[in-house]
Amino acid sequence: MIAEILATGDEIRTGALVDSNSAYLAERLDSQGVEVTRHHSVGDAPAALRTVIDEISRRADIALVTGGLGPTVDDRSAEAAAAAAGVGMALDHKALKQIEDFFKERGRPFSLTNRKQAMIPAGADCLYNPVGTAPGFDITIQRCRFFFMPGVPYEMKHMFNRQVLPRIEEMQGDERQFNLLKTISTFGLPESLVGEKVAAVGDQFPGITLGLRAKFPEIQVKLYLQTRDDQAGCKMLESAADWVVRQIGRPVFSDDGHSMAETVGNLLISRRETLAVAESCTGGLVGNWLTNSAGSSSFFLLSAVTYHNQAKVKVLGVQEQTLIDHGAVHESVACQMAEGARRVADSTYGLSITGIAGPDGGTPEKPVGTVCIALVGPNGITARRFHFSFGRRLMNKRIFAMAALDMLRRELVAPIKKTDVQQEKNGNR
Amino acid sequence: MIAEILATGDEIRTGALVDSNSAYLAERLDSQGVEVTRHHSVGDAPAALRTVIDEISRRADIALVTGGLGPTVDDRSAEAAAAAAGVGMALDHKALKQIEDFFKERGRPFSLTNRKQAMIPAGADCLYNPVGTAPGFDITIQRCRFFFMPGVPYEMKHMFNRQVLPRIEEMQGDERQFNLLKTISTFGLPESLVGEKVAAVGDQFPGITLGLRAKFPEIQVKLYLQTRDDQAGCKMLESAADWVVRQIGRPVFSDDGHSMAETVGNLLISRRETLAVAESCTGGLVGNWLTNSAGSSSFFLLSAVTYHNQAKVKVLGVQEQTLIDHGAVHESVACQMAEGARRVADSTYGLSITGIAGPDGGTPEKPVGTVCIALVGPNGITARRFHFSFGRRLMNKRIFAMAALDMLRRELVAPIKKTDVQQEKNGNR
Repeated sequence: MIAEILATGDEIRTGALVDSNSAYLAERLDSQGVEVTRHHSVGDAPAALRTVIDEISRRADIALVTGGLGPTVDDRSAEAAAAAAGVGMALDHKALKQIEDFFKERGRPFSLTNRKQAMIPAGADCLYNPVGTAPGFDITIQRCRFFFMPGVPYEMKHMFNRQVLPRIEEMQGDERQFNLLKTISTFGLPESLVGEKVAAVGDQFPGITLGLRAKFPEIQVKLYLQTRDDQAGCKMLESAADWVVRQIGRPVFSDDGHSMAETVGNLLISRRETLAVAESCTGGLVGNWLTNSAGSSSFFLLSAVTYHNQAKVKVLGVQEQTLIDHGAVHESVACQMAEGARRVADSTYGLSITGIAGPDGGTPEKPVGTVCIALVGPNGITARRFHFSFGRRLMNKRIFAMAALDMLRRELVAPIKKTDVQQEKNGNR
Repeated sequence: MIAEILATGDEIRTGALVDSNSAYLAERLDSQGVEVTRHHSVGDAPAALRTVIDEISRRADIALVTGGLGPTVDDRSAEAAAAAAGVGMALDHKALKQIEDFFKERGRPFSLTNRKQAMIPAGADCLYNPVGTAPGFDITIQRCRFFFMPGVPYEMKHMFNRQVLPRIEEMQGDERQFNLLKTISTFGLPESLVGEKVAAVGDQFPGITLGLRAKFPEIQVKLYLQTRDDQAGCKMLESAADWVVRQIGRPVFSDDGHSMAETVGNLLISRRETLAVAESCTGGLVGNWLTNSAGSSSFFLLSAVTYHNQAKVKVLGVQEQTLIDHGAVHESVACQMAEGARRVADSTYGLSITGIAGPDGGTPEKPVGTVCIALVGPNGITARRFHFSFGRRLMNKRIFAMAALDMLRRELVAPIKKTDVQQEKNGNR
């Protein structure tokens, strides 16, 4: 079975919006063993919509269409589908009721234009939308089964996973294949070196193919396997993943899709330990990452974003003389920040970051990209200095925050007694 | 003149990578007055590439193609173009020299596979690549002029702006048009109400068309104008934007593309005032946003992310009794947090956020989505309570942070003497 994906709307056609729906759907279909051959985008003009629906209907078995189901006059997907199928439009009473209820529950006025959303091509099977106002529909045109879904990513994903995917699985029947994927996330090694370490995975585990992906500042190793036997395939993939993890070693921080912040959070939760952070140049990014997951309140107590030096002194107890002697970006300042955060919050660990994100503020001795990170905990205190040469401010903030979380992760995975202040260049470890 | 855009590569086809190149190119062409009618993506299979190039060549005047020019066997765009044009491949000696120099300068070994990149369709005009190894080319197939560019966004943009755009302008000649766009960003009104307020813009300013875009949690008003007279068009668009700003009033926070955090930062810088933040449920997001721009150190002194109640007490001086009496999410706690941050950092303003981002922690009286925000400054102190009903944790964090920054923005634009503690439901204002 082959599938094509169509994203509609003038915002996508004119580039006002980056279409992320198509990549999401392609990845979901691919993992389901459905081959995606083409993606398309057209605007809201009915003729253009009609033409592309027509083309797809003669070529593909499955078409996933997003967008154009809203209440306004610009939303023409349903009409275009009806025209391509040679049918009229019909009101779906259950969909209308759901839209009315949706507005009632939220105390918002129901306008007549919203009624338009309950009109779908005659004979199409309605895909109800419990999380928004635009229902989708399932209609066969020529040789192809079309699934029309809303363009809002959250609503689209909900509808795809609960309603469209089961229908596709039913279409697949015994033919069903699985494209299995396992992602191993690493931090701290360059892509080329990660590639060398795992290049032989296909020889060790025949049938498994390898992909590397730089998702700054992580390097991800992706293992793919196409199989009809879901269970045996999963087992083999797990063995291959174990082999990859052994090859790469400690730079692997996750083999289950968890981010660095989630990994650190889960380690702290399982150890029933707590964390206080002292940030400077990262501006709160570490705290923001750590609190993106529910449950973070059980380990995350504080992040003192002491951007100004006086805040470092008053909130964290950094000594003025240390700042005068060494400037804010120095191992001894980082140590005092980490200790201060731990003391104030009474946490198991204190983690600090002070650096130069740029574009200004660099010196020959401490260029933009210099960062000092300190970690204090039951096993003592460690401070390290890194020089990252990515140049751009937002990239520096991200890699500083990742390097800090990674230092804590390595401590939690295998604590080592340390008292030294170490120096490190270029972020190699 | 009409244009189509083609993004190639199995990573895009299978959804491993979101294609942002096509949106970039569409926006650039659109602003140049070239109508983009369709986008396509296909994988690396030569037959699929050849088919789509063939289709485009019969329909469009201009085609922009990205990807598939690399050194590996997967990179088949040049061969597919040659096949579609009915020509062979030829070595471009100048391109080869540039690739060799690129490797030499970086001290990297030049491999024979890189030589492949200097092979382009015979008769095509080479587009040299000073910032990478893959040259592009310019070739006419059927009625359409194709520009093949690398897939790496940085290299693609460099090549498009320096080499492709001047060629397109030359093609346009006297026909050249401009699609002008002005974006007005608002926060605090629902999309439908913003739409009603500005619906008449096309009557007031003939030729201007209106678009609304929900970029959570902002609502953007977009004004489009197609013109041959760049200067007169810009003037008219500015007048229309002024009219829109007057219609909407204070919910407009930017008419120049600046984010809420940038707007607040610029206001503070121009007033030579400083800010300290006290965050709880937003976890550092406000500090992170404010420090994404260079120069934030001139106004941003501190964000105390006091996630745990004890941190609120120790860092900000919140009274334990207040926490016991009212819980952490309350106007009086918010006031003490804002005052504490301002006192510790000795800043002009103190801004605090304490709320329930979810999914857990809600109560009937204070459901998930409840947030208390306080602002203290030279004109006194204000605290407000909002209930946002978006449900999801990350959306709540974003809208809480936006609401807090917006409260400060309104104070900076037009300070009002306040001493009351106000209550507000549903985020309407």
